[in-house]
Amino acid sequence: MATRSREVRLKSRPVGMPMAENFEVAAVDLPDPGPGEILVRNSWMSVDPYMRGRMYDRPSYVPPFALGEALQGGAVGTVVKSNDPKFSPGDLVESMFGWREAFVAPAAAVTKLQNAGVPAQAYLGVLGMPGMTAYSGFHRIGEPKAGETVFVSGAGGAVGATVCQIAKIRGCTVVASAGSDQKTAWLRSVGVDATVNYKTAGNLLKAVQEAAPKGIDIYFDNVGGAHLEVALEVARPFARFIECGMISIYNATEPPPGPRNMSYIVGKRIRMQGFIVIDYIDMREQFYADMTQWVKEGRIKWEETIANGVENAPKAFFNLFTGGNSGKMLVKLD
Amino acid sequence: MATRSREVRLKSRPVGMPMAENFEVAAVDLPDPGPGEILVRNSWMSVDPYMRGRMYDRPSYVPPFALGEALQGGAVGTVVKSNDPKFSPGDLVESMFGWREAFVAPAAAVTKLQNAGVPAQAYLGVLGMPGMTAYSGFHRIGEPKAGETVFVSGAGGAVGATVCQIAKIRGCTVVASAGSDQKTAWLRSVGVDATVNYKTAGNLLKAVQEAAPKGIDIYFDNVGGAHLEVALEVARPFARFIECGMISIYNATEPPPGPRNMSYIVGKRIRMQGFIVIDYIDMREQFYADMTQWVKEGRIKWEETIANGVENAPKAFFNLFTGGNSGKMLVKLD
Repeated sequence: MATRSREVRLKSRPVGMPMAENFEVAAVDLPDPGPGEILVRNSWMSVDPYMRGRMYDRPSYVPPFALGEALQGGAVGTVVKSNDPKFSPGDLVESMFGWREAFVAPAAAVTKLQNAGVPAQAYLGVLGMPGMTAYSGFHRIGEPKAGETVFVSGAGGAVGATVCQIAKIRGCTVVASAGSDQKTAWLRSVGVDATVNYKTAGNLLKAVQEAAPKGIDIYFDNVGGAHLEVALEVARPFARFIECGMISIYNATEPPPGPRNMSYIVGKRIRMQGFIVIDYIDMREQFYADMTQWVKEGRIKWEETIANGVENAPKAFFNLFTGGNSGKMLVKLD
Repeated sequence: MATRSREVRLKSRPVGMPMAENFEVAAVDLPDPGPGEILVRNSWMSVDPYMRGRMYDRPSYVPPFALGEALQGGAVGTVVKSNDPKFSPGDLVESMFGWREAFVAPAAAVTKLQNAGVPAQAYLGVLGMPGMTAYSGFHRIGEPKAGETVFVSGAGGAVGATVCQIAKIRGCTVVASAGSDQKTAWLRSVGVDATVNYKTAGNLLKAVQEAAPKGIDIYFDNVGGAHLEVALEVARPFARFIECGMISIYNATEPPPGPRNMSYIVGKRIRMQGFIVIDYIDMREQFYADMTQWVKEGRIKWEETIANGVENAPKAFFNLFTGGNSGKMLVKLD
């Protein structure tokens, strides 16, 4: 008895900003699960900036998305049928089978979630990949010490907003940049010490210098570009730059100019390090333990922007690049 | 009884490439050393690229050179008179009182050298600051493993040439870039696996890709600019970039464009770290022990380019930026 599922496929590779025409929605009939397989109905799927990189046809740390096939990404859903003894109908699972309403897969390809009393979609946000990205990069590369000043760009997004709050928990002074007054107000409401709206700031360097008059010890970079140049300028000696993403240039059609002040890396002895969340998988247990506690204690909060229906997933994805999301961008699928 | 000494002073701050008119030679009469002081006659002085940074009037890790005063830098000389029990006439000493023929200073401001059977000027080269820079940066930031590929820019200079040979001792494959066929031939003669003459290579990226077909694991950066962009392009995942200097931009009068491919830092998880040799002073004993042995065993060789007389020190300094030196650039003072 087949199960109907709609999915979003990559129709053509975006050049510059992704557009509706690069995607198509298709319906498929899923077979019944075979031995060792399960059928899952997704409740939520995630759209994340890193997905833009997989839309290029180029070698990278993960293979590019294939044309004509369903996209992939984080999703949370419920087991409907199981041919594996470790799963029962009703189990909450996390998988990389996002961008579709339902799927059949080997049981080993999904992770059973302990429902720790938080909303299911939190496993795509603060308790999922974005939260783990924030937690692992900030601690492992940032090596924060109480009293230090942390600058976070893209702080209105899922990763950035979480970094800001972890930094406060670690006793740091936090300066955050985001693209709207609504986002900066929310960031201040969760304890961020000073904020910059980079869209209205005019001179970004001056704005960050005023927000962080003593300079910065840690820069958590989600955007690259002009923010990175400013961070090099205001960095204190021995600053650590956590290079998590460069959303400002993901859609660039020409190679964007790099920071004109790279020589500060030598003189200020800056350590600049890129990472991918899977590099720090050894921190997973500690992450879950700390983050679950912080969420329950109300020390980590989050915002969500929710789109409804798999057919609106591309639009939700575009929001990431236009600043249309506050906090975690999600698509509700049931 | 006064001692006559000629010295080179900074007359005006260079704009762009330093020129003769930025310097002046003056003669001074040194007083007899007071209690706890010594009189030293310099035999050799060093000119180094980092000195260009101190000619700007800007905050940095060391204060700028003052106009109208003698410049400073590494020097090796012999004690002539001593009013300190720890020093006797004839002792070989190293100091930062370069750019002058003789000086009087507190005994604590100089270091007595154990003459280990190497030429005195080696203490300004492989056994001095450049050698220690190569040794500490390569090991501490590079974390080399046998079998890895190391790319060294500015390899014709004192630091770069030493890095190449240490990397060979550590079992690495070494690719080096320098600015003349004479320099690249010398580098190959001491074991460098492949070389690029960046002045005649045409397409630098292509030349480095051919020299390092499997990519690079470590980049020791002495030059910045185009070389840094190329290194980002050919870097393998988890590459380490040792940011020692950026001589290509020290004389820039406009902010130079940065690398257009900075996003590789994220995707390739590159660690890029600046340093100053004094940060790693804890490695000094190990450096002296290893390097002295390597020099005696003939495993570390060096070239010297020698200018004669303190009045020619500015010209020797200019050579660093025009490629006029092979290996360590020295000025002989006696």
